[in-house]
Amino acid sequence: PKKLKSKVVDTMKKTKKIGKDDPRRIVHAMKVGLALTLVSLFYYLRPLYDGFGQAGMWAILTVVVVFEFTVGGTLSKSINRGFATLLAGALGVGAEYLADFCGEKGEPVILGLMVFFLATAATFTRFFPNIKRKYDYGVLIFILTFSLVAVSGFRVPEIFELGHQRLSTILIGGATCIMISLFVCPVWAGQDLHNLIAGNIEKLGAFLEGFGGELSIYLGEESTTGSSKDGEKSFLRDYKSVLNSKASEESLANFAWWEPAHGQFMFHHPWKQYLTIGALARECACLIQALNGCINPKSQPKVVSEIQTKIQQSCIKISIESGQALKELSSSIKKMMFPSPAAVSHVQDCKAAADDLRNILQTTSLPTESDLQEIMPILVTASILIDIINCVEKISLAVHE
Amino acid sequence: PKKLKSKVVDTMKKTKKIGKDDPRRIVHAMKVGLALTLVSLFYYLRPLYDGFGQAGMWAILTVVVVFEFTVGGTLSKSINRGFATLLAGALGVGAEYLADFCGEKGEPVILGLMVFFLATAATFTRFFPNIKRKYDYGVLIFILTFSLVAVSGFRVPEIFELGHQRLSTILIGGATCIMISLFVCPVWAGQDLHNLIAGNIEKLGAFLEGFGGELSIYLGEESTTGSSKDGEKSFLRDYKSVLNSKASEESLANFAWWEPAHGQFMFHHPWKQYLTIGALARECACLIQALNGCINPKSQPKVVSEIQTKIQQSCIKISIESGQALKELSSSIKKMMFPSPAAVSHVQDCKAAADDLRNILQTTSLPTESDLQEIMPILVTASILIDIINCVEKISLAVHE
Repeated sequence: PKKLKSKVVDTMKKTKKIGKDDPRRIVHAMKVGLALTLVSLFYYLRPLYDGFGQAGMWAILTVVVVFEFTVGGTLSKSINRGFATLLAGALGVGAEYLADFCGEKGEPVILGLMVFFLATAATFTRFFPNIKRKYDYGVLIFILTFSLVAVSGFRVPEIFELGHQRLSTILIGGATCIMISLFVCPVWAGQDLHNLIAGNIEKLGAFLEGFGGELSIYLGEESTTGSSKDGEKSFLRDYKSVLNSKASEESLANFAWWEPAHGQFMFHHPWKQYLTIGALARECACLIQALNGCINPKSQPKVVSEIQTKIQQSCIKISIESGQALKELSSSIKKMMFPSPAAVSHVQDCKAAADDLRNILQTTSLPTESDLQEIMPILVTASILIDIINCVEKISLAVHE
Repeated sequence: PKKLKSKVVDTMKKTKKIGKDDPRRIVHAMKVGLALTLVSLFYYLRPLYDGFGQAGMWAILTVVVVFEFTVGGTLSKSINRGFATLLAGALGVGAEYLADFCGEKGEPVILGLMVFFLATAATFTRFFPNIKRKYDYGVLIFILTFSLVAVSGFRVPEIFELGHQRLSTILIGGATCIMISLFVCPVWAGQDLHNLIAGNIEKLGAFLEGFGGELSIYLGEESTTGSSKDGEKSFLRDYKSVLNSKASEESLANFAWWEPAHGQFMFHHPWKQYLTIGALARECACLIQALNGCINPKSQPKVVSEIQTKIQQSCIKISIESGQALKELSSSIKKMMFPSPAAVSHVQDCKAAADDLRNILQTTSLPTESDLQEIMPILVTASILIDIINCVEKISLAVHE
């Protein structure tokens, strides 16, 4: 009983956390409940029930299957479902009509063959990446409806009535979903994608800015390391989520493609550009991960030579400037504007600092007494930072749309 | 018409390529066709049809929705569907029974409220990561069945008969899918996951081995660069797919969890371990990407000093040894054995080479005339390679299970 109690408390806590993390989830759950209750009116209001009979079931089925978290998801599924049902229904009636000519015995054979070939062909098209991305659900419904219609064994006139009933209930179900997801606290996939990308770039910026601070600790005041690191550590780990965001970015971009104009987004918003920026951000995160490996307290040099300090100075500058540039870019994405002059100037400053660094490296020769082992981490850091600048520049160009 | 023709030819080519890339796709499509044709026998064979009537529809619906590419996918969906239908059906009958007490007018209100609350609660549970991973489809079917039963407005005895019919047709549909996906050229998610991980590690190994060759070109014979690079480039890009394999690894691991023992895999095969190895492989790929940025022909130094050659020698050694170690690890994963002594000795050799490198760095001081700019790329390479060794070691430990 004690175990059970702690488990229940645990679950309660988790539930609360999930709800708090994104309150839209609770709203979404209630929207589904509302849509289902509305649709079940078909059964309760007898006049309607008499008109549609058992077909009202299809409205419920449609609502449960079609209602997605984002507007784009709901739209894509309902539109897919509607068109696939229409097309497959028409084809099914045609098949039935054809099979009618073949007599009592030939009919099942012909229909069976047609179901086999169409199902095989349609299933195979689901492996095409283009179709998988946008019309996967439509193909599924196509197979389902065609088999149901072709196989139902009714004569043609009956089928028309059945088809009419089913189609209209599916339409009613789909329309209910679309209305509710559009007008009751809509969750736009496009907006989510937009925020995700801007947030990712901001995380990268926060890391680079914070990394500048870490660097100065690395060679400078060693005593403060222990205490200050704990507070900063959060943004030193945040960037990791950027590495794994590819899948959610892609599904959001797919859904966003289906959404009508909303908020600041036009109808033909360049969603693909977001994917490009996302890919660049991931590349940058990759470099950051490599960077993270360079600076660990173990490799802290005992003697700090003059050249180390010089290199370190420009590294800190590059790191902080590029971090600020990314933050500016992120905020200009958020505001949907061209990158502000501040962002451009930060990128320029970065480049200037990198040039300085190159100069230092080229002109200064090492004092012979210091060994390479000691100087290596800072050199590696410098080199990776230069790569990161390239990346930041590319992102800045991509943000220009 | 010309455009159309070229489009048709294009599509044909694509179709052929998709089929060739993985012939199991064609087999899968035919399996779906077969399952559907078998199930539609319900309609054609009149004795059966008389027994089940319209409920035969549910068998077709189940087949279309449940049949997945892998055995694990099909099993997970059918089991989810079966249990969810049972549970929701029982609850629905209970709700109906309760509502019966409330009289003609209270009944719809009570039922409507129950549908609303259960649908809201169930939809919310779909946001729990654990449930989303394994039981997402089950929850969906639960909502669907409960609403259908609670709302259908029949009296209780009728419901039992209807439920019996529906459940048995769903079972028949599910069983058909399971049988066909188990016994007709089964596609095991576990096997796929196994191959994916082993293949990814092999790709990393191939890159590192090839990178050793690139390195020797980098400082050595410059003349051959142009010609030999084209041939080698394929494995210099292959590693990129490793970076993006997280999503497919996770879904395969989920499906593999549902699969019974098959081939060399026991029932409680440690699928999670594969995810750990996969994550390490991705980390390694990230480092490799950073490595790839270091060596570009532009930064090729004009003067090759003695120390550069020394460092380069050990870099090449590390690169090739670690590549071979990864290849050995990959083949021992493939054979499901503990890492062979060869793998262990390659890892040892790597470490020895890294120690050598450290020694070189520690003892040799730079000749004052060479500048840092020139020596930097090779230093960075060395440093990242040392990180990669750590990564390889971790992978090797993880493979030990």
